[in-house]
Amino acid sequence: MSIRPTDKSAAEVWVVEAGCLRPRSDSVATEEPLEIRLRAGAKPENGGSLPVFSRRAQSAGQRTVAITMRTPGADFELAAGFLYGEGIVRSRQEIASISYCDDAELDEDKRYNIVNVELQEGALPELKSLERHFYTTSACGVCGKASLEALRIQGGAPVAPGPQVDPRVLLSLPAKLRAGQSVFAATGGLHAAALFDADGGLLAVREDVGRHNAVDKLVGFALLEGRLPLHDHIVLVSGRSSFEILQKCLMAGVPVLGAVSAPSSLAVAVAQEFGITLVGFLRGERFNVYAGLERIRLPVPPPV
Amino acid sequence: MSIRPTDKSAAEVWVVEAGCLRPRSDSVATEEPLEIRLRAGAKPENGGSLPVFSRRAQSAGQRTVAITMRTPGADFELAAGFLYGEGIVRSRQEIASISYCDDAELDEDKRYNIVNVELQEGALPELKSLERHFYTTSACGVCGKASLEALRIQGGAPVAPGPQVDPRVLLSLPAKLRAGQSVFAATGGLHAAALFDADGGLLAVREDVGRHNAVDKLVGFALLEGRLPLHDHIVLVSGRSSFEILQKCLMAGVPVLGAVSAPSSLAVAVAQEFGITLVGFLRGERFNVYAGLERIRLPVPPPV
Repeated sequence: MSIRPTDKSAAEVWVVEAGCLRPRSDSVATEEPLEIRLRAGAKPENGGSLPVFSRRAQSAGQRTVAITMRTPGADFELAAGFLYGEGIVRSRQEIASISYCDDAELDEDKRYNIVNVELQEGALPELKSLERHFYTTSACGVCGKASLEALRIQGGAPVAPGPQVDPRVLLSLPAKLRAGQSVFAATGGLHAAALFDADGGLLAVREDVGRHNAVDKLVGFALLEGRLPLHDHIVLVSGRSSFEILQKCLMAGVPVLGAVSAPSSLAVAVAQEFGITLVGFLRGERFNVYAGLERIRLPVPPPV
Repeated sequence: MSIRPTDKSAAEVWVVEAGCLRPRSDSVATEEPLEIRLRAGAKPENGGSLPVFSRRAQSAGQRTVAITMRTPGADFELAAGFLYGEGIVRSRQEIASISYCDDAELDEDKRYNIVNVELQEGALPELKSLERHFYTTSACGVCGKASLEALRIQGGAPVAPGPQVDPRVLLSLPAKLRAGQSVFAATGGLHAAALFDADGGLLAVREDVGRHNAVDKLVGFALLEGRLPLHDHIVLVSGRSSFEILQKCLMAGVPVLGAVSAPSSLAVAVAQEFGITLVGFLRGERFNVYAGLERIRLPVPPPV
């Protein structure tokens, strides 16, 4: 039996309903920390062989770049997508390997909470860029505009024209997303992000207690599958769209982002600035377009 | 006219519905970065007078401790609550003043995205503790158990017995929360957290694009009003409960936390470990109790 953490955990709950109290065995979404470590690739001075790392030699060529609370599952994709979204890794080719921690001194279950991303030689990131992006432009003070400028510095560029999307395709996406949310179905406690082609074909669904993690997993999936940039794709998120969600989609080149709920002001600003079609309140038989109307196929057909 | 950022922003949207496209003027929740700076209090060597700071002299006695994407409004409460939740500020008395940035070199609107928290002399925090808490225990690897241990190191202690709560009181809370969500009503895009007394009397509602910020604002409100610890109170959040939400409630001494949606596994673990009553799926005529059933008044009365 594996002791790898699972995406659902058992919980004994008391249900209070209609004046009655009853016990029930339930499932909750698992939340556990994940440490993402970046390792420098093999250096010529090592004769080309891979250096040996241990937990106690972090400074000798590896660095913890993030610890995030996440739902276990798709951890390699989460690590890859996070690094890509932050502009630290720019292509699949820069990654030599991704693995769980192999430190025998650690309990096995803890090793599954550490992911090592080993880079190819010559792909060493500027670790300065790991600082919060705002700082790069803080000479002018923090504000929404400076945050947009930080995205450009990080490598964000206007997305490609991409596809025109039939409104009926957009309206069909939430049901497909929900059908793919296996952990949500069991726990009611997860955000989700889904990747579709321009005709509404579902390519992947990823779930997490953190909505940013769900998008990282999706982008990591695309990165590891060699599908980036996602110039012909649609991403749908189960909740709201914020600056952070737009940032991740921008870095992945996503032309159309739909959300079941509302966008924030800064999400709208990023979409307008970088040419992303931003759809919100995508539910039932309607949706709002906050930016990039040109990718919505018009005239809108009558309802069937 | 003030140029202080507001909690709602105008947005021009296209509504696609029933095969028709129509323009609409809409509101979206404002999202802007907030920089929280900590200033050392007056030192004797200055003759007791306050040192003069400028943006260009950050190292001389002030430090940026966080930049968070937030909805403007209750910014002082957000800063105070954040510092309290992280264990950096332990009482109202440690804070000498809270103010927006007064650097005349900055545009006025940007000054409203910077909050200076000036500490009393002698209240200088251990800035080491600003590092991610996980690191304090990472010798044994990151895992849920290490995260609980980090809470103890940070100052988290089992909450007081607190009140027993009538189930009908709990069932009445979501409607009161919703009624207090003015920005949500206009935008549909905000998380909320509300503070109640044990009889269900509403004391405060705070909203934000980030659910952790909404709880920080609420705790900051309580801190600045001299109401901490919240040993006789109930907190309700509009969404899910996670490790981070439990952390903030634990630090504030909240005995009963309700959430409209699901908890995560680590939220349940924190509640069990520190004696917090954790209620989830609090909606309609029912709720689940994940921990701390002893604070739910039994027997449950029949429905009226």
